Amino acid sequence: MDPRRVVIVGAGFGGLSAARKLAVAGVPFTLIDKKNHHLFQPLLYQVASAVLSPAEIAVPIRSVLSPGRGRSIEILMEEVESIDTAAQSVHTVGGDSVAYSDLILAPGSKFTYFGHERQWAHNAPALKSLDDALNIRRRVLLAFERAETTSDPALRDRLMTFVIVGGGPTGVEMAGALAELSRATLARDFTNIDPRAARVILIEASDTVLGAYPDRLCRYARRQLEHLGVDVRTGAPVEEIDATGLRAGESVIETSNIFWCAGVEATAVGRWLGVDTEKNGTVAVGPDLTVSGLANVFVIGDAATARDAEGKPLPALAPVAKQQGAYAARAIILRRAGKPAQAPFRYRDWGTMATIGRSSAVASFGRLQLTGFVAWMVWGGVHITYLVGFRNRVTVLFNWFWHWITYAKGSRLITGPDQAATTDLDSPRAIDRELDKTVNALEEST
Amino acid sequence: MDPRRVVIVGAGFGGLSAARKLAVAGVPFTLIDKKNHHLFQPLLYQVASAVLSPAEIAVPIRSVLSPGRGRSIEILMEEVESIDTAAQSVHTVGGDSVAYSDLILAPGSKFTYFGHERQWAHNAPALKSLDDALNIRRRVLLAFERAETTSDPALRDRLMTFVIVGGGPTGVEMAGALAELSRATLARDFTNIDPRAARVILIEASDTVLGAYPDRLCRYARRQLEHLGVDVRTGAPVEEIDATGLRAGESVIETSNIFWCAGVEATAVGRWLGVDTEKNGTVAVGPDLTVSGLANVFVIGDAATARDAEGKPLPALAPVAKQQGAYAARAIILRRAGKPAQAPFRYRDWGTMATIGRSSAVASFGRLQLTGFVAWMVWGGVHITYLVGFRNRVTVLFNWFWHWITYAKGSRLITGPDQAATTDLDSPRAIDRELDKTVNALEEST
Repeated sequence: MDPRRVVIVGAGFGGLSAARKLAVAGVPFTLIDKKNHHLFQPLLYQVASAVLSPAEIAVPIRSVLSPGRGRSIEILMEEVESIDTAAQSVHTVGGDSVAYSDLILAPGSKFTYFGHERQWAHNAPALKSLDDALNIRRRVLLAFERAETTSDPALRDRLMTFVIVGGGPTGVEMAGALAELSRATLARDFTNIDPRAARVILIEASDTVLGAYPDRLCRYARRQLEHLGVDVRTGAPVEEIDATGLRAGESVIETSNIFWCAGVEATAVGRWLGVDTEKNGTVAVGPDLTVSGLANVFVIGDAATARDAEGKPLPALAPVAKQQGAYAARAIILRRAGKPAQAPFRYRDWGTMATIGRSSAVASFGRLQLTGFVAWMVWGGVHITYLVGFRNRVTVLFNWFWHWITYAKGSRLITGPDQAATTDLDSPRAIDRELDKTVNALEEST
Repeated sequence: MDPRRVVIVGAGFGGLSAARKLAVAGVPFTLIDKKNHHLFQPLLYQVASAVLSPAEIAVPIRSVLSPGRGRSIEILMEEVESIDTAAQSVHTVGGDSVAYSDLILAPGSKFTYFGHERQWAHNAPALKSLDDALNIRRRVLLAFERAETTSDPALRDRLMTFVIVGGGPTGVEMAGALAELSRATLARDFTNIDPRAARVILIEASDTVLGAYPDRLCRYARRQLEHLGVDVRTGAPVEEIDATGLRAGESVIETSNIFWCAGVEATAVGRWLGVDTEKNGTVAVGPDLTVSGLANVFVIGDAATARDAEGKPLPALAPVAKQQGAYAARAIILRRAGKPAQAPFRYRDWGTMATIGRSSAVASFGRLQLTGFVAWMVWGGVHITYLVGFRNRVTVLFNWFWHWITYAKGSRLITGPDQAATTDLDSPRAIDRELDKTVNALEEST
């Protein structure tokens, strides 16, 4: 094997962007990811709210890169255990060692429970992977099914109350989607309950939703959510969560359904490298996106804190990761060709967007701010363009079109452990017991 | 609630057919199913072989029937525990009791391991539900991923050997699809292994595949399978299965991948009713599809043994169940209107089909027998027509078109417990350990 092999960890927006650039340039590399697919995370909430199927927002890494037998591209479905920066090799949990000439670390971020992982994660699942999304989808749909058959009014109320923690884009989009699911999609599907009576509550610790967006858009987003029937409670940091509900600020809410979209922190990249990290676990990188003292180790995407010319940290967004991935790849290509290094990394801000419900959104492009249907069209166009894979684009477009016209079916399938077979009248515990197996399996795989 | 309520158990082809007919006639009914969706089982093997997504072959029952608040249609996601034919009520595992005026039982069939359930089911998962299909898909894709990273040649061989037990339509279709997956779809996706070298072996106890089909079609199917690279071994009843392989007839095969598509028997309907059953667990019914001595209890579909005018049992096929469901509904409608009963049930045989690979099939319509591409076109047309839901038809058609043109991606996503994180070099055991959680969860939910 060619000793001078680039190793990329992570097949998200950052890692895949680097990989594609290296592939085009014919530079051999090994890509390591613990999953077999690239996930289009901005649309993950649509799997969780039963609008899209997993296959529409994910594509097998091997499809994108088509390694073939040339040995120039190697893809390993492994999990990183540690990195030996002196010997310049990556060690995997499975016992493999992969030597590198250059290393691009793009393992992404995860949601954190601010130290309460053990207690809270079980009752308030996060939304980060396809399995998370399917888990949440199952819990949402089962809640309605269980509410339909129960004769206990207190239990029915808990089942038909949905709490989303975190007023960033993920939480806002999830809340809007759940409101639409209950108000419109499921509205005529049940006999003993009225899904439109479901409560959807969005909890945010700070005093505004979409805090990173311009004020005007924050206010618009809040109005739209309330118009959709979402109960938005800001200034309410979560203090306690258990199987029957949560306490946040002055609110005490009894619910079986808490979904966690707050508190982002990096994965274990600092530990791998043995370097200090920022407060949120990210690794600080220089203007060329490498780690101080390790000139051939790049950290990009959510796992890194890179700063712009004013010293302000770049946001944890997909376009940032994509541009950084291309930059890191280009740096390696130039070095190998003996050419001078490129200028420091500069993020070109194409704007940020968030959608609220099926036909409204906010979009900020510097001075230009859009709201409403226009923003939603732009949002849709951008996301379709960024989606990897022509086939995915067609099917997602079709699904959105169908969903938009009919408010209809989406992908409301309950797969995995069913809750039909239970003699336990205390449904949340029964559901939790059954889902324990799934959650434990998920926890052990992440 | 209207005391004269029809109760239907099962939302498969039989139960759903009856439900739709009753809905149109405005007869109130309650439909009970332990899942929330109707599954188009003839295409289940395409989910297991990573061509289609679950959402493309399944539709939520509530979408098909749209109960609304009228209380005329009630859908309960429950599992039947027992039936009190004297008191005329159905008892569910969840503790509900549903009184009936007429009862239509259509709970379907399951695969049996001929008494070896405990020992064999774990190592040889069956293909009956969406969860089964996703489990098999995961095992297939993980086998290739694991083979790519292992340095143990014996393990690699076991991982790249796939054994399908059962030479009926399901097994034949599954074998053909796996052969195509490894020979074409995945062929250029790996670096350290050549997926085209994977072995696909079809095991059948009798001396022919597709035993229920005319001889000419059996021989054609076998030739087609062998042309696709499937090793067809007939006259080989399975005698032993463990984690490293199986023994069938004179064959001893070391493999990590055994998929069970043999031995069909009915679900527990005989036990529910407290009546004797046929050898395969089905309940014998009369010419009007009711149980002897229980004039208002119909058993239809795979769970019943109905006989034609010559006394020959009707086959366990989707069209049979559909026609029986419509017949039972009509009987109830006529009785309520005080009209005379209809003539005995007569199955109208529209022919049977099985596909082998992506562009070949066998189709038998009485005297007319088709093979090859023409049969495949007919097969495709019929299945698309039978698929419930316009949206599903469009997306499946598009996916087939795409897959046919490109041999490409399909839905090759690995979700659920990953095998990337393992330190155990004996991969089948590591995989089994991880999958234990999933399999146990599945076993407890079925």
